[in-house]
Amino acid sequence: MRTVDVIRHKRDGGRLSAEQIAHFVKGVTDGTLPDYQAAALLMAIVLRGMTADETAQLTDAMVRSGVRVTFSNLPSIPVDKHSTGGVGDKTSLILAPLAVACGAVVPMMSGRGLGHTGGTLDKLEAIPGFRTVLSLDEFQAAIATVGGALIGQTAEIAPADRRLYALRDVTGTVESIPLISASIMSKKIAEGVGGLVLDVKTGAGAFMKTPEDSKRLAQSLVAIGNASGVRTEALITRMDVPLGRAVGNANEVVESIETLKGRGPTDLEMLSVTLAARMLVLAGVSKDQAEADARVRNALQSGAGVEAFRRIIAHQGGDPAVVDDYSRLPSAPDEHRVVADRRGIVTDLQAENIGRAAVALGAGRARLDDVIDPGVGIVVEAPPGTPVKAGDTILVVHHRSGRGLDEALPLLEAAIRIDDRTPAGQPLIVDEVSVGG
Amino acid sequence: MRTVDVIRHKRDGGRLSAEQIAHFVKGVTDGTLPDYQAAALLMAIVLRGMTADETAQLTDAMVRSGVRVTFSNLPSIPVDKHSTGGVGDKTSLILAPLAVACGAVVPMMSGRGLGHTGGTLDKLEAIPGFRTVLSLDEFQAAIATVGGALIGQTAEIAPADRRLYALRDVTGTVESIPLISASIMSKKIAEGVGGLVLDVKTGAGAFMKTPEDSKRLAQSLVAIGNASGVRTEALITRMDVPLGRAVGNANEVVESIETLKGRGPTDLEMLSVTLAARMLVLAGVSKDQAEADARVRNALQSGAGVEAFRRIIAHQGGDPAVVDDYSRLPSAPDEHRVVADRRGIVTDLQAENIGRAAVALGAGRARLDDVIDPGVGIVVEAPPGTPVKAGDTILVVHHRSGRGLDEALPLLEAAIRIDDRTPAGQPLIVDEVSVGG
Repeated sequence: MRTVDVIRHKRDGGRLSAEQIAHFVKGVTDGTLPDYQAAALLMAIVLRGMTADETAQLTDAMVRSGVRVTFSNLPSIPVDKHSTGGVGDKTSLILAPLAVACGAVVPMMSGRGLGHTGGTLDKLEAIPGFRTVLSLDEFQAAIATVGGALIGQTAEIAPADRRLYALRDVTGTVESIPLISASIMSKKIAEGVGGLVLDVKTGAGAFMKTPEDSKRLAQSLVAIGNASGVRTEALITRMDVPLGRAVGNANEVVESIETLKGRGPTDLEMLSVTLAARMLVLAGVSKDQAEADARVRNALQSGAGVEAFRRIIAHQGGDPAVVDDYSRLPSAPDEHRVVADRRGIVTDLQAENIGRAAVALGAGRARLDDVIDPGVGIVVEAPPGTPVKAGDTILVVHHRSGRGLDEALPLLEAAIRIDDRTPAGQPLIVDEVSVGG
Repeated sequence: MRTVDVIRHKRDGGRLSAEQIAHFVKGVTDGTLPDYQAAALLMAIVLRGMTADETAQLTDAMVRSGVRVTFSNLPSIPVDKHSTGGVGDKTSLILAPLAVACGAVVPMMSGRGLGHTGGTLDKLEAIPGFRTVLSLDEFQAAIATVGGALIGQTAEIAPADRRLYALRDVTGTVESIPLISASIMSKKIAEGVGGLVLDVKTGAGAFMKTPEDSKRLAQSLVAIGNASGVRTEALITRMDVPLGRAVGNANEVVESIETLKGRGPTDLEMLSVTLAARMLVLAGVSKDQAEADARVRNALQSGAGVEAFRRIIAHQGGDPAVVDDYSRLPSAPDEHRVVADRRGIVTDLQAENIGRAAVALGAGRARLDDVIDPGVGIVVEAPPGTPVKAGDTILVVHHRSGRGLDEALPLLEAAIRIDDRTPAGQPLIVDEVSVGG
């Protein structure tokens, strides 16, 4: 098989065969296929698309590029959640302990932040000592002992995806539902789960800006998961403003623990509970959504969730005392208040601008090799719907000696909208997709 | 400027600015732009297209990647001809001497054959001693002394095109009118001509299969040339069957000399004379096409053309005695006749199949580093329109000890069509494009 013929076939709008896709993925994985040919094929896929079958075959080939983890002697179907990326989205830190406390098994492999959205691993690494890099053996042992683990992808998981993603990032070939789907699902399928809930974000602060695009992505992901034997469903949730109040790393850990203690922001608690309950149903731990909801709420109120988080932290080498003493977490020494310039109602806090401001402060990375400052970040004092007068604090910026402030402040000021009237409230969960739906 | 932003802009259907195009070509030329980014952008250009302005800017940037040759003290505007590639197309070997004999100046830089079409340089190199590699100084000296030279592109000419073409060849990004146009025209503009006649082939044996596609390409080429100060016009000519009778290298040199002696096939002589006459008009040597036609025909009949070819050969180190003694040219020792399998009229000799068969025999190259056997080739004994009976010779294959014959013969047999009736004749020149047309 000549790679140039595969490229030409896709360029001309043809469907790739399973053999052609396997040739491509194998060549990417073992390095025999030059980057320039991979780049040309990726661009042809972006512009010509892929059918559901092709996308499933691409995913399958990427799973097969590494190992598919298995777990033995589990009490229930292992389950996970994946988000397509939002600002202030720390639900993983809340729902994983809650689901574990309810008897689910959660082998969660997460990613790092890039662009304006944060990453679960970066947040967890704000906890002193917390190890997100475990070997596959350690990962399996953590699952057997604690019932849950939150780690980064190991080298064995979908190695084709790593090389492809790096190439997509520099060749303008990120924006493609088939490629995004195969990237997400190959890693989730390979990590060994039997059930998966997807949180597909939609809105101005999300990668997918419209509910329609988000639904197309959700349908693609759900179809692939179920075709691969992973019970998969998706919620489509709004990402116009940050989720919860904290945007950063250590401050998001604090907000997650507060939420596990029953003192979190309503939107964050609601979404975390809903997603955790879905996981319980997919795991076979709860028979329906109502029972699962009650069970998760009970774990929240009883403190079982926060105790599960403590066990997870301890097992992964972190300092479990952070759960009771937030001063053990890193913090930034300096504070700047962004205030209202007029009287009215806060009607928008644009998530993308706030995410970009957080990156500028050092809470995220503009480039893959940027080092994160876990202490810096932004806290929303006046979320949308809050009445304010001129001079009232809207956002508190936690910075380190002014680093990045010049870039962050204009972004933050532009992110705020104050109007005379309260806008019509939009539901956080706008749609859902399950198999066949 | 970030290359990834340039790629994304074209991916999304945008127009590239002159600065973005210059950034791309400069990066390709000096190697600072990675091949994978170039490949992604090339595929986006193939699928999204380029406007006439973008194509002109791309051409200009490619010209500027090297030197634009100048000639001093010329008696007339230097002129050239370029063909988009055909089977048996040896018009350059005929029209260049004819135009020189008529007083035109012809600084011709040509290419090598790749795929099923032959290349002028390969044909010329069948002449013992003939040097197609001249330095720029030698090229200018040849033009000053002889009035014409037929050489390969020197390293100084459009270096960006060499790297881009190599990349396009392996990334499925050859088939694009803007990219083809910029590649052809950057080299022609850089070689220093003031007038250019294009022979854009159309038909089953051509790169462009339909007159419409060929006309689009011709219009693109003519627009670029005239925008760059090169008076450019195009003929669109049929390439369904080989031009003339000989397909190979040494045998095409023989046919060219025979044509210069007035004994060539009608189609080849007509096209060569027409193109040469166009060159004379563009050069300002003749005032109109009728005068130019008469002048070229006179050079053919008087032998002035063949004498000019002799001078060109001698000046470039070749053996001028080949003009009188074809046995000084290489030849293949073995012969195989492909015969008619029924009585009827030969109605087709598919050029692409015949070209591929010639490549299989060693007359062309399947890969850039293949070595050519100048003596092998194919001669058409019964061109379309010839009545034949079963067993009559249609094609004579000149091969070397059977090399490639297994592959060539099925192609040749499949190339021949014999019907009961003569097909309606199609004109060789089907259309023309001049500035504004």
